[in-house]
Amino acid sequence: MASESGKLWGGRFVGAVDPIMEKFNASIAYDRHLWEVDVQGSKAYSRGLEKAGLLTKAEMDQILHGLDKVAEEWAQGTFKLNSNDEDIHTANERRLKELIGATAGKLHTGRSRNDQVVTDLRLWMRQTCSTLSGLLWELIRTMVDRAEAERDVLFPGYTHLQRAQPIRWSHWILSMDATSERDFVAEFLFWASLCMTHLSRMAEDLILYCTKEFSFVQLSDAYSTGSSLMPQKKNPDSLELIRSKAGRVFGRCAGLLMTLKGLPSTYNKDLQEDKEAVFEVSDTMSAVLQVATGVISTLQIHQENMGQALSPDMLATDLAYYLVRKGMPFRQAHEASGKAVFMAETKGVALNQLSLQELQTISPLFSGDVICVWDYGHSVEQYGALGGTARSSVDWQIRQVRALLQAQQA
Amino acid sequence: MASESGKLWGGRFVGAVDPIMEKFNASIAYDRHLWEVDVQGSKAYSRGLEKAGLLTKAEMDQILHGLDKVAEEWAQGTFKLNSNDEDIHTANERRLKELIGATAGKLHTGRSRNDQVVTDLRLWMRQTCSTLSGLLWELIRTMVDRAEAERDVLFPGYTHLQRAQPIRWSHWILSMDATSERDFVAEFLFWASLCMTHLSRMAEDLILYCTKEFSFVQLSDAYSTGSSLMPQKKNPDSLELIRSKAGRVFGRCAGLLMTLKGLPSTYNKDLQEDKEAVFEVSDTMSAVLQVATGVISTLQIHQENMGQALSPDMLATDLAYYLVRKGMPFRQAHEASGKAVFMAETKGVALNQLSLQELQTISPLFSGDVICVWDYGHSVEQYGALGGTARSSVDWQIRQVRALLQAQQA
Amino acid sequence: MASESGKLWGGRFVGAVDPIMEKFNASIAYDRHLWEVDVQGSKAYSRGLEKAGLLTKAEMDQILHGLDKVAEEWAQGTFKLNSNDEDIHTANERRLKELIGATAGKLHTGRSRNDQVVTDLRLWMRQTCSTLSGLLWELIRTMVDRAEAERDVLFPGYTHLQRAQPIRWSHWILSMDATSERDFVAEFLFWASLCMTHLSRMAEDLILYCTKEFSFVQLSDAYSTGSSLMPQKKNPDSLELIRSKAGRVFGRCAGLLMTLKGLPSTYNKDLQEDKEAVFEVSDTMSAVLQVATGVISTLQIHQENMGQALSPDMLATDLAYYLVRKGMPFRQAHEASGKAVFMAETKGVALNQLSLQELQTISPLFSGDVICVWDYGHSVEQYGALGGTARSSVDWQIRQVRALLQAQQA
Amino acid sequence: MASESGKLWGGRFVGAVDPIMEKFNASIAYDRHLWEVDVQGSKAYSRGLEKAGLLTKAEMDQILHGLDKVAEEWAQGTFKLNSNDEDIHTANERRLKELIGATAGKLHTGRSRNDQVVTDLRLWMRQTCSTLSGLLWELIRTMVDRAEAERDVLFPGYTHLQRAQPIRWSHWILSMDATSERDFVAEFLFWASLCMTHLSRMAEDLILYCTKEFSFVQLSDAYSTGSSLMPQKKNPDSLELIRSKAGRVFGRCAGLLMTLKGLPSTYNKDLQEDKEAVFEVSDTMSAVLQVATGVISTLQIHQENMGQALSPDMLATDLAYYLVRKGMPFRQAHEASGKAVFMAETKGVALNQLSLQELQTISPLFSGDVICVWDYGHSVEQYGALGGTARSSVDWQIRQVRALLQAQQA
Repeated sequence: MASESGKLWGGRFVGAVDPIMEKFNASIAYDRHLWEVDVQGSKAYSRGLEKAGLLTKAEMDQILHGLDKVAEEWAQGTFKLNSNDEDIHTANERRLKELIGATAGKLHTGRSRNDQVVTDLRLWMRQTCSTLSGLLWELIRTMVDRAEAERDVLFPGYTHLQRAQPIRWSHWILSMDATSERDFVAEFLFWASLCMTHLSRMAEDLILYCTKEFSFVQLSDAYSTGSSLMPQKKNPDSLELIRSKAGRVFGRCAGLLMTLKGLPSTYNKDLQEDKEAVFEVSDTMSAVLQVATGVISTLQIHQENMGQALSPDMLATDLAYYLVRKGMPFRQAHEASGKAVFMAETKGVALNQLSLQELQTISPLFSGDVICVWDYGHSVEQYGALGGTARSSVDWQIRQVRALLQAQQA
Repeated sequence: MASESGKLWGGRFVGAVDPIMEKFNASIAYDRHLWEVDVQGSKAYSRGLEKAGLLTKAEMDQILHGLDKVAEEWAQGTFKLNSNDEDIHTANERRLKELIGATAGKLHTGRSRNDQVVTDLRLWMRQTCSTLSGLLWELIRTMVDRAEAERDVLFPGYTHLQRAQPIRWSHWILSMDATSERDFVAEFLFWASLCMTHLSRMAEDLILYCTKEFSFVQLSDAYSTGSSLMPQKKNPDSLELIRSKAGRVFGRCAGLLMTLKGLPSTYNKDLQEDKEAVFEVSDTMSAVLQVATGVISTLQIHQENMGQALSPDMLATDLAYYLVRKGMPFRQAHEASGKAVFMAETKGVALNQLSLQELQTISPLFSGDVICVWDYGHSVEQYGALGGTARSSVDWQIRQVRALLQAQQA
Repeated sequence: MASESGKLWGGRFVGAVDPIMEKFNASIAYDRHLWEVDVQGSKAYSRGLEKAGLLTKAEMDQILHGLDKVAEEWAQGTFKLNSNDEDIHTANERRLKELIGATAGKLHTGRSRNDQVVTDLRLWMRQTCSTLSGLLWELIRTMVDRAEAERDVLFPGYTHLQRAQPIRWSHWILSMDATSERDFVAEFLFWASLCMTHLSRMAEDLILYCTKEFSFVQLSDAYSTGSSLMPQKKNPDSLELIRSKAGRVFGRCAGLLMTLKGLPSTYNKDLQEDKEAVFEVSDTMSAVLQVATGVISTLQIHQENMGQALSPDMLATDLAYYLVRKGMPFRQAHEASGKAVFMAETKGVALNQLSLQELQTISPLFSGDVICVWDYGHSVEQYGALGGTARSSVDWQIRQVRALLQAQQA
Repeated sequence: MASESGKLWGGRFVGAVDPIMEKFNASIAYDRHLWEVDVQGSKAYSRGLEKAGLLTKAEMDQILHGLDKVAEEWAQGTFKLNSNDEDIHTANERRLKELIGATAGKLHTGRSRNDQVVTDLRLWMRQTCSTLSGLLWELIRTMVDRAEAERDVLFPGYTHLQRAQPIRWSHWILSMDATSERDFVAEFLFWASLCMTHLSRMAEDLILYCTKEFSFVQLSDAYSTGSSLMPQKKNPDSLELIRSKAGRVFGRCAGLLMTLKGLPSTYNKDLQEDKEAVFEVSDTMSAVLQVATGVISTLQIHQENMGQALSPDMLATDLAYYLVRKGMPFRQAHEASGKAVFMAETKGVALNQLSLQELQTISPLFSGDVICVWDYGHSVEQYGALGGTARSSVDWQIRQVRALLQAQQA
């Protein structure tokens, strides 16, 4: 059974994974770089869990101690990966469990692996950026030292690779700083590309939401077009155009950087490429932002369809937390909830239609109060933290953005 | 009413279009380059319609003559665009209708604007590529002339921009041909990028088809993973990885071209970048192709869901063709069918539930045999042309691909 | 004669320009967008010239008034371009001269067109970025308004496009902000690309400087390699590798953005592509920065060759300024100096070997003190402004960078 | 001494290499993939040398046998890399020398490492492309099998992700083939990018050749511009614009591929991006090709400067071949010639000014006939093979291209 292999989504899967797929999917070959920040992140997270009352002091100490041991093994090169360690996070958690037992399973309470991945990567990049700036400053220091020592050496300054006027050799060395002269263009084009990439993702979501299959939203006629062939169709052209423009804008950014690559310093006519890029990108952004504003402000939502798309299996995580609140470590609770999902699928019923007796065959911790789990409104209200789905949390976000809007207007 | 503006999807829309959206959507500003090939394409298409018996000889002659007049107006600079001409195809068709009346509406029978756009662009590019090769050959001829006249001039050959060995100046001029030495790498990387782009689109389709909302297909467990947080989930990771690799592979192609840009001719150490690119892309392609094959071969389809997703409004084009068969020009038939769709929506019934009387308020051409339109199997069997949906047509395609497979094995 | 056409580099050219080249070179078709900022920039510049004593108050007023008239013509659509206006800067200056006469020629004193282009573009982008942020804020405001009004609507939250947990519709609208989650990766990759692009340009300069032809610098053996075929060669492989890496690093940035394009919001496995990109780019940057530091610190300069590369024609601008100091408007002085260059070329002598009589045939303003122009040390000392070549200016730059270095260490 | 480390350019270097540089420069970490094709290539090359009379039959057999042994060690995983093996080619040759002694040094006669690298990569890619097509055909076969088995399953066809018309599921599977519909656009944009990349390299060469430092060519006034500030300057703007356009054209290609990435199949409005890209690229190519033709046809060459740039050290390879003809293995001859270069540099004389006695301290094989080596015309005439510098070889190339030109016109 798949759960024996210790995969995180243990309880539900019955097929085996294609070995090529497993390798394709696994990231351990390169994300082992993250071992140190992964341990750091987990240590900070377990302290947070203790503060929130989700770990006892003793459990936290046990986890911290175990994580230190994991780090020590990595540092000494004695950490042994096994074939089921698909990424660094799984590997570290698997080893922690071997070292300290079931308490290890509590470390994952309330964080998804995706949260963990992003946190680790951010920590790693903070260290890396600091190292890289150190090296960059070292290069600059070297250049300044030379510039100072050799400031009386004259040589030709060039533009277009043609001798122009006499300059100091030191001037060339420092002017490296000054040739940044098109950075403002490149940065604008990149900012626009990133912005358009976000909008392409928003457009993609909305295109899906206005398919017949999702039917969550309906685009205003002002932002749709029909088909010249099929009379019944209404196409989200506006959103498709928004999505497509990410390519065009990024193409301009790519083009400028390629033009700049390897260009001799100072002015060369190649730089004339900057203007058309900037003008086109600016026009495109302006149209996209206005159309996006129009789309959003005239969009009609189908509240009923949205509600009907909710189903009890989406509360499986809440079911696991129910067990966590009864004292089960998260990893076990996740597996138990997975078994409940599997049982419901097998019986062909909704998850909330399993009887208490059936649930109790999975875990004796289930009791009558499990019924409170099956309420969507209750579910979203649980997540009151920053960025959560509770009404208070959403309200807080709205106030934050409004404050920014006001600040920007002033 | 929107249909008064003459938009192609005339019959159904009731809102007005945001003017910024209209401009954003319109392509007439640049696709007017296509006027000549658009007329050529339409002339060829009307000859095809006549052969297929969908136009009489007289109608075809009328259309051909009208199209010649349109072309003449463009050539003489007297063609007047109006504000509803969103693209060159609409503009030409609108003008044709002004010149020859309702017969113009028959020209669009059985071709969507997308077909027309692609055909026009292909025609245009055939001309353009021919012009560009002409210019390229002119450059080559010039180089060869110089190479011949100056073949006794010696000068330094360089590698790494360091003087290497004496060469003939003619050698530099012709070796321009030979420095193509990394074309085979660039072409491989581009071929891989294009191939991955196709696979990213196939993956996107399948990701949609295995959402709860579409539920057309189900991925084998061997190519899915679960969630570490949500026990009920089954994620199409394999397809997402396939989709994502298009970026990586194209990034390598972009990187190599940027490295090559502006590089002095002959060998420079920069060219060492080629190998890692090729190795990584080859490994990625190999994994992607194998995983894709695994996904496709183990995919389970939900035939019942697929069938239930069909609805009578998808037969609106067939309804228009019904009217065309009764003698109505396609443009009018399209508008009539659009009105039927609108009527059904307004009444809240399916399109095939409109009574004959109701349909006859739209056009007196509707009669009892309209009932034959509402059969999906019949609908797909209608399109027996190359690339059509008829069983015979699909069988033909299968035989073609099998023949290719056999040829490749031999 | 070319000078009759009023081209800026009037005095020296004798051939005609290929009309295709003229069109290829001209930017007026798109840089007319800059008319407003070009006038603004010129107005500010003329005020600066007056402060520096290079324009009298009356001349400045005349120029300011003329520029206002130019702006008025653009605003009212009455500005007439003529066929010699290759860019907006030339066009505006040509028109100014028509309006106010020879004083217009003084406006160009001490600024090259490249300075003017960059200044204009910066001014234009300041306005544009402000407009675009306004539109972006408008979009955000619209989204917040909806988020507030519809905060009680629940619908499925998705990851991997699979239904995950119930969320608020408002959450999706605002989470658009939060899905920025890979911006830090994209920005890092872009920062690295831009940094590598700068280094590729520095490497290109140094590769040229260590050719036999330039012979300004010699690379340490520690950063060169030999040829397996040609025993006499010493190749700047280190610099070529630095130059080449811009492609690789940017390829990773391009790859990530393509992967992100159109991705449904929240987590998708596609995002796993981020890590290998970051790791590879970080390793590459680290090696490049260390090698660049090594190259710069061990580079040997050939001071004598540098000095010998200076020639009197590089002082032609100084010769023009000599005439400006005698009261001639810059444009005329530029043309006079150009004639001196042409005379020296024709006679086959160095520019400083023209006799006083010969110079006086070009302008009676030349007198015995012209001899002071021919001193390279004197020439570089003239430019004491920020970023200039005077020793004091270079010293000031060195102090600035050192201060930054210290600040960064603290 | 560096030569002890066995580096290929043994004889001349005196400094040590920075270890970071060594690692940065080394490619062995990834080019070991090439071990098999490197051995294959060397086997074929040694057979060629035997045919050309440069190896005896016995030497060839010794080399072939040694190479088989090298391959065997790689295949069995017993090949030991040492720290001086910077790439696979050096590693294999080093090992061959250990196995068969000095004869190994004859294998490199007349081929540079760059030739070897390209040949190996081509061989490797031939194998890889064959493997990848095999996998691709496997995917296609799988798709066709499903298409055949499930051809009676109907489901909705989509355009713009809106349900359009009923289609067969098999149609979707095969239409994967047909959605190639924008390949012709992508391929055109890539072809243009590659073509522009070549032209950017030609432009870079010519920009260098028309610097004061090289002074090999002079651009016609029709393709140059002057400076608005510096009267003496003549800038190669035409060539800089040609160089810069590679970025723009590739940017369009990158943009289109990004737009296509992850797009649902069939028509989406995103595809409208294709036309502006094609139009702009076509216009750019057309201008670039015409300007390039104009530049080449009006270029003036400075034959005298070209001749003066030749120097005796560029004949060092010929000096090595002189020793090879006297029976010395190429590797030893290369080292001997390197010593001669070093001796000349140390003494401050040109290579051809070393006396016979001095040369004989390096090798007793030098005799009076060494004087024939110092003739540039003789040097270029030596290389009569395909692509060589002999007049006959250049003439042959000219005839080939002329034949192509004629064929294309017909």
